[in-house]
Amino acid sequence: MCEANAYILKNGKEELLLEKVDRVLPHEKGLLLQDIFGRQMLLEGRIKELALVDHKIVLEEIT
Amino acid sequence: MCEANAYILKNGKEELLLEKVDRVLPHEKGLLLQDIFGRQMLLEGRIKELALVDHKIVLEEIT
Repeated sequence: MCEANAYILKNGKEELLLEKVDRVLPHEKGLLLQDIFGRQMLLEGRIKELALVDHKIVLEEIT
Repeated sequence: MCEANAYILKNGKEELLLEKVDRVLPHEKGLLLQDIFGRQMLLEGRIKELALVDHKIVLEEIT
């Protein structure tokens, strides 16, 4: 499976937010993240960077 | 390998832009896409949606 872990940038550091993310969809207030088990999380943020071979999604909050 | 194909949304349709994308990085004017062979492409756009289990990145142009 080619899911990735989602990290949020806080004060220049990447903190793990959600593991095994499959889908990231635009949502009214930001993003809807969904993991491979169907669990969902809303984030007022946007995608900053992807490194898929490293299974990594970097997100940042909307300020 | 867990690369994905990048599609660009044009008139509501997804057109294949770059295959086997590993990294997507923020760039001065939008995004820098890099495939698993190191080939790079610049796009004045942003990431709209991810579907990683389907190996899919959907981008949209900045209008």
